Amino acid sequence: MNTKVELLAAKCKAATKQIAIASLEQRNSVLQALIKNLIEGKENILSANRQDIKQAQLNGLNPAMLERLSLENRLEGIIHDIENIIALPDPLGELFDKQELENGLSLSKLRTAIGVLGVIYESRPNVTIDITALAIKTGNCALLRGGSEALHTNQALIEMIQQSLKSTNLPADAIQLIASSDRSQVKELLQLNEYIDLIIPRGGASLQQFCRENSTIPVITGGIGICHLFVDETANLELSLEVIFNAKTQRPTVCNSLDTLLVHTAIAAEFIPRIIKKLREKDVTFRLDKRSIQFTDLSCRLAQSKDWDTEWLDLILGIKIVDNLQEAIEHIDLHSSQHSDGILTENPHNAERFIKEVDSAAVYVNASTRFTDGAQFRLGGEVAVSTQKLHARGPMGLKALTTYKWIIRGKYQVRK
Amino acid sequence: MNTKVELLAAKCKAATKQIAIASLEQRNSVLQALIKNLIEGKENILSANRQDIKQAQLNGLNPAMLERLSLENRLEGIIHDIENIIALPDPLGELFDKQELENGLSLSKLRTAIGVLGVIYESRPNVTIDITALAIKTGNCALLRGGSEALHTNQALIEMIQQSLKSTNLPADAIQLIASSDRSQVKELLQLNEYIDLIIPRGGASLQQFCRENSTIPVITGGIGICHLFVDETANLELSLEVIFNAKTQRPTVCNSLDTLLVHTAIAAEFIPRIIKKLREKDVTFRLDKRSIQFTDLSCRLAQSKDWDTEWLDLILGIKIVDNLQEAIEHIDLHSSQHSDGILTENPHNAERFIKEVDSAAVYVNASTRFTDGAQFRLGGEVAVSTQKLHARGPMGLKALTTYKWIIRGKYQVRK
Repeated sequence: MNTKVELLAAKCKAATKQIAIASLEQRNSVLQALIKNLIEGKENILSANRQDIKQAQLNGLNPAMLERLSLENRLEGIIHDIENIIALPDPLGELFDKQELENGLSLSKLRTAIGVLGVIYESRPNVTIDITALAIKTGNCALLRGGSEALHTNQALIEMIQQSLKSTNLPADAIQLIASSDRSQVKELLQLNEYIDLIIPRGGASLQQFCRENSTIPVITGGIGICHLFVDETANLELSLEVIFNAKTQRPTVCNSLDTLLVHTAIAAEFIPRIIKKLREKDVTFRLDKRSIQFTDLSCRLAQSKDWDTEWLDLILGIKIVDNLQEAIEHIDLHSSQHSDGILTENPHNAERFIKEVDSAAVYVNASTRFTDGAQFRLGGEVAVSTQKLHARGPMGLKALTTYKWIIRGKYQVRK
Repeated sequence: MNTKVELLAAKCKAATKQIAIASLEQRNSVLQALIKNLIEGKENILSANRQDIKQAQLNGLNPAMLERLSLENRLEGIIHDIENIIALPDPLGELFDKQELENGLSLSKLRTAIGVLGVIYESRPNVTIDITALAIKTGNCALLRGGSEALHTNQALIEMIQQSLKSTNLPADAIQLIASSDRSQVKELLQLNEYIDLIIPRGGASLQQFCRENSTIPVITGGIGICHLFVDETANLELSLEVIFNAKTQRPTVCNSLDTLLVHTAIAAEFIPRIIKKLREKDVTFRLDKRSIQFTDLSCRLAQSKDWDTEWLDLILGIKIVDNLQEAIEHIDLHSSQHSDGILTENPHNAERFIKEVDSAAVYVNASTRFTDGAQFRLGGEVAVSTQKLHARGPMGLKALTTYKWIIRGKYQVRK
C-alpha cells in the first residue's frame, strides 16, 4: 500500500527527467520566478512564519532556536543567495575524460543530474529555499523534510516554489515537502531507495546517526566539527594568538570553529597564559589538561576525558600540552571528527608531515579553521560540509549534486 | 564486548596510516613479494583449493560454481593481473584544483587513500588476490569476507598476503580475512562504521540488497545489468546483426551482456526473422512480445511481464517492438538497471536524444554493450561496475578507491 510519503517520492521521481533535461535558461527562469514570488508574497510568508514562532514560544523553544526559525529581516538575504546561484555557470553538460580507444570507440563522461535528493533538516526554514535553488540549478528534484516548528512557513514557501516551477512549464512535483510533524515519516523516507538517490541530513549528530543507521539510500553525513589547532614550538606566537582567537570566537556556534588547542610543551609556559588572557576578552571558558592547568591562576576546569570528544559550539576551549608533533597527530587521530584541523608552525618539515598524516576533510597550515566553507572555498553555494570520504569531502558545492554517465560512440564495433 | 569480526576490523583500521603513507615503491614491493610467494607456494594453494573443491562436490555444488571455485591453471593469470597493477601509475598524491584566494590562502586538493574497504564476495577465490592488489596499490586496508566454499583456499592466500606485507615492513594486519562460514558475521561487518569506510559487495542482487538494507557504512552497489539495445528504423541492419550477436552471445553470463532488444516497428518485419536466425546459430532462445512473435515461425515463448525485469545471464533474449524512440526510451526508463544501454541508428538526432535522456552508467551509440568494463575503458583494473550515482558510476578503476583532502596553506590568515 502506498503511503503519503511514498506517493510524494514517486511524484518527485516522475518529474526527474523533465528537470534533468531542462536548459540552463529554464532552470534559471524557475529561480527568477521564485524571487519574484518571494517579493510579492513576502507578507504571506512572514505571517505564516509568525504563526510558527508564536507556537514555538508557547512550546517553550529556547531563544537560539526561535532566532533560527525567524525569517523577519532575512528575506532580502535569501533572495540575494538565489541571485548568486543564478549567476553561477551551468553545473551540467560538461563532457570530460574524453578518449579515443584503439578500436575506434570514442569514450567520454557527461556530467548529469543525480535525480531525487532527500533532505532532512531542522528548524531553519531558509534551508527550504536554499536547497530548492541548489537542486533546481543542478537539474535535481528534492523531497524536503523540514523541522516541525517551521511547518507553516515551509508550506507557504513550497507553494511559491511549486508556482515558480509551474509558471516556467516545468513540473511542480519536482520539489515536494513532507508537511507533517510525524517523526516516523523520516524513517520511511530513508527506506525509499526506489525513488530517492541521495539523503542529505542537515542537523546534529543524532540526526546524522539516525540516517546512517536507518537509510537504504546513500547518505552524505557531515557538519560535525571537532576541530584542532596545534601550535608547535616554531610558530609565530603573536600571529598564532590572532588565528586561535579567530577560530574560537569569530562564530563559535558553527562546525568549523575551534574545539581543542594543542600546545607544544616547549612554548607552553609562555603561550598558555597569553592565549587564555586573550580569549578571556570574549569570555571564553576552558577545559585544561593536568599539565596546562598549572600555567594559569584562574580557577579553570580540569578537562574530563569526554571533553576531547566534544564539539563545543560555544565559547569553550579545550587546551592540552603535547611533547611533540607525533603526540599532537595521535591526539587528532583519536579525537578529530575529520572536519578541519591545522598546525601553526614555521617548520616546513612539520607542516608537510602534518599534511601527510592528518586525515581530515580540511588540513590547515597557518590559518584559521573558520575558512572551511563553500563560499570561502569559492564553490558557489554550499550544500553541506561532508566529513565522510565518498563522493564529496569537505565543503560540497554544486558539483557534489551531480554525477556523470559514460557516453560511448562507435561504428558498430563488437568486443573481441 | 568486542567480537572477533570487530577485532579484525579494528586491527585493519590501526594499520591504515602506515599503508596510506607508504611510498609507491613500498606498495609495489608488497605486490612483488606476493607474486614471489604465489609462485613458491603454488602447491600449498592448489592443495587447499582441492580440499575446498572436494567439499563443494560433496555438498553438491553445480558445475558452474565448481568451475569458479577452482584455481587450477589460473594462478598464472592471477600473477599477470598483479603485474599489470604494479605497472600502473601511482593513484595517490596528486594535487589538483589548485587556487590562490584573494586573501592569500593557497588551496588545493590532495588525492589520498580511503582507509578500510569491506569487501563481500562469493565463491571465486581469485577476488581475494584481486582486491588485495587493488587495495594495496591505492594505500587502503581491506577486510575480506569470501564465500564459505573457498575457505581453505582463502586462508592459504591470506597467509601469503600477510607474509608479503611483513617482508616489506608494512603491517600484516592491513589485509584481513573473516575466516568463517557464519553468515551472521556479514551483518556484523556491515555495522562497523567506526572502522570501515566503504562496503563493496561483489555478488548477485540478493547480496547487494542485503548490504543496502543492513549497512551503516556507505555501500557501492552494482554489477547487475539488465541491458538494452534499440534498433531504430535508420540503423545499418547488416552491422546491427553483428553488434546484437556480440552483445548477446560473446559472454552471456556477465553483467554487460544484452537482455532485451527493442526494434522499431518500421523494420520489424525484415529484421526480427534475421536476428532470430542469426542468434539461433548459438542456440539463443527468446521471449517475444505479442507483436514480434508474429514475425517468426519458430515456437517462441511469449514474454511475461517479469521477463522485461530479468537479467538473463544466459543465452536468452527478450524482443519487443516499439513504435518510436520515445517508446524505446520509456521502456528503458522502466526496466533498465542503469548499467549499459544503447541505440543503433544512423540518425544523429535520435542518437543525441537517446544520450540525453537515457540515464544509465554507460550509454552507447552503435556499439556492443559488452565494452562496459574497466580494462576496455582503460581504467587499469576493475573494482566493480557501479550502477548507483554517487562517488563512482560505471566501471570503477583505481581512482574510485581514493578520496581527497583539502590542503590550505596560509600566513596566519583569519576570517573576517
